[in-house]
Amino acid sequence: MTCTVCRGPAVIDLRRHNANFCAEHFLRFCRDQVAKAISQHDMIAPGDRVLVAVSGGKDSLALCDLLVDLGYHVEAMTIGLGIGDYSEASTAAAVAYAETRGLPLRRIDLRDEYGYDIPTAAAVTRRVPCSSCGMSKRHLIDRAALEGGFDLVATGHNLDDEAAVLLGNVLHWNAEYLGRQAPVLPARDGFPRKVKPLVRLSERETAAYCVLRGIDYIVDECPMAEGNRHLRYKEALDSIEAASPGTKHAFYFEFLDKAADRFQPDVAQAQEGLRPCARCGSPTTTDVCAFCRLVERTAHAEPVPVELLRAGRGRGRGRARRGAGGAAQSRAATS
Amino acid sequence: MTCTVCRGPAVIDLRRHNANFCAEHFLRFCRDQVAKAISQHDMIAPGDRVLVAVSGGKDSLALCDLLVDLGYHVEAMTIGLGIGDYSEASTAAAVAYAETRGLPLRRIDLRDEYGYDIPTAAAVTRRVPCSSCGMSKRHLIDRAALEGGFDLVATGHNLDDEAAVLLGNVLHWNAEYLGRQAPVLPARDGFPRKVKPLVRLSERETAAYCVLRGIDYIVDECPMAEGNRHLRYKEALDSIEAASPGTKHAFYFEFLDKAADRFQPDVAQAQEGLRPCARCGSPTTTDVCAFCRLVERTAHAEPVPVELLRAGRGRGRGRARRGAGGAAQSRAATS
Repeated sequence: MTCTVCRGPAVIDLRRHNANFCAEHFLRFCRDQVAKAISQHDMIAPGDRVLVAVSGGKDSLALCDLLVDLGYHVEAMTIGLGIGDYSEASTAAAVAYAETRGLPLRRIDLRDEYGYDIPTAAAVTRRVPCSSCGMSKRHLIDRAALEGGFDLVATGHNLDDEAAVLLGNVLHWNAEYLGRQAPVLPARDGFPRKVKPLVRLSERETAAYCVLRGIDYIVDECPMAEGNRHLRYKEALDSIEAASPGTKHAFYFEFLDKAADRFQPDVAQAQEGLRPCARCGSPTTTDVCAFCRLVERTAHAEPVPVELLRAGRGRGRGRARRGAGGAAQSRAATS
Repeated sequence: MTCTVCRGPAVIDLRRHNANFCAEHFLRFCRDQVAKAISQHDMIAPGDRVLVAVSGGKDSLALCDLLVDLGYHVEAMTIGLGIGDYSEASTAAAVAYAETRGLPLRRIDLRDEYGYDIPTAAAVTRRVPCSSCGMSKRHLIDRAALEGGFDLVATGHNLDDEAAVLLGNVLHWNAEYLGRQAPVLPARDGFPRKVKPLVRLSERETAAYCVLRGIDYIVDECPMAEGNRHLRYKEALDSIEAASPGTKHAFYFEFLDKAADRFQPDVAQAQEGLRPCARCGSPTTTDVCAFCRLVERTAHAEPVPVELLRAGRGRGRGRARRGAGGAAQSRAATS
């Protein structure tokens, strides 16, 4: 197997691009794909201050690395979710990366600052953990970006993530979510601008990028996400992609080209109902936003150890299904 | 396991309905689902003459049986595709069923009447067999319905078929096909009205229906369809359905409710380019329709034995992919 560019020994084959690359040209390929995504979708303007949501996983660390490499002004933030050893190792990976590369890192800890953690939130709400996790991350990232005066938030959603979320959204034809599923969400009242510069890279590629760049990331999947819908959608798409390389790319990018606009009226309609949360001022469709309600509901709850709760297990089916839908739509806000 | 209706011993469990049925109540369930589909989508008016496209498989034979049972005026047609033993056994099953039940059956044989068969068509066109097969069946069924003065054509597409076709169409965001994917296609110049009364039943259910009704159907899948995209899409959806029963139903029916209308402009646009085929008069976007061109191209071709050709094998990737897309959209026109 030889590199498509230089004919030297290749370290990776990319079937959907019908190409193989040596380490040097693979790293260049990744940088070019991110630069292309940023330019094609007008993600970041020169001089923008970018807040990167970092989980400690391959995607968010690769994203930091690539944005810095491309010359952007980047700061990172990470959220301690309290999911036992997994969260500790995730935070440690984020901290180690930031220290080694001299990257400013903001740290928020759910338990210390808001009095709850994800296992406890899942137990109290009786929904899949991914549901309160995604909501909490979105809320705190939005707030940090606005309070910190950042021009935008960048998240590490890769092509596999976006294709799986899109599959979940079409399986249920959630018109509003479909209208919102874009690589760029413009800023609007109470929401920062959000971009996904990794949409042209697969998760196999971001993992290879980290390995080749010597970035230590947390390899384990979140133990609470086991068996969730998002992972099932990924597996279903993986089986199709294996037989027809390029399917995920076509699925996502053809959607953006040919279908996304058709769902814009639903987004506009949903936005009409937004008003400031009575507690924190964040945009919400209810008096008090979901985050403030969660903080309230968990205030006097006994902390629940992560081992007692796993996604999709031991919870009522109806509730678990409702929760999982939301999780599929919003997962990996900091991944 | 007891019947949800009568508490007698159940013979089948239907997870997406959270129900079990004995033989009697399962057969009634199937009839009710077909009656509901017909009524909800205004498929058949009293007194309509219905042409049912029959392959000899479970779906088309169950469809005949259910429509007769519901009191509709039904005639059947079957097409000899020349796919070796498979086609012979399929035709034999269709003939045996029609004879036993006293159902009028029209028979067309591709080789006898049009000088080609599917394996030869696949070899000549160098595309997956499902491509010329679907096109040939659509053309001949449309023509038989119009020439025979039928009010409509009914086909045996079940929920699994429709969900898999829908998945193929969203994976490529084929807007025109999406706009056309309805349980009823109204008649228009040169096209008969077409309906799919089995859209509320899964293929496991139509198979069980045949077994319980003592209908001998051909169990084998078409040997030329092996490994085609449509089957891959079915498998992907099966894995999701197994974990979340009801997903396929929601995927298809929510699409009809919330999304299908958004793709109507593309259908209207595609129809603008239709004109009569210079040879046979059928609507087409080219001077000579695809069917007449196929008849012409295969006129002097040496017959190809089925064993030499299997879907997705030994053919150029680009062509096979193009062909398979069309096949996924149109498969099972007579199944």
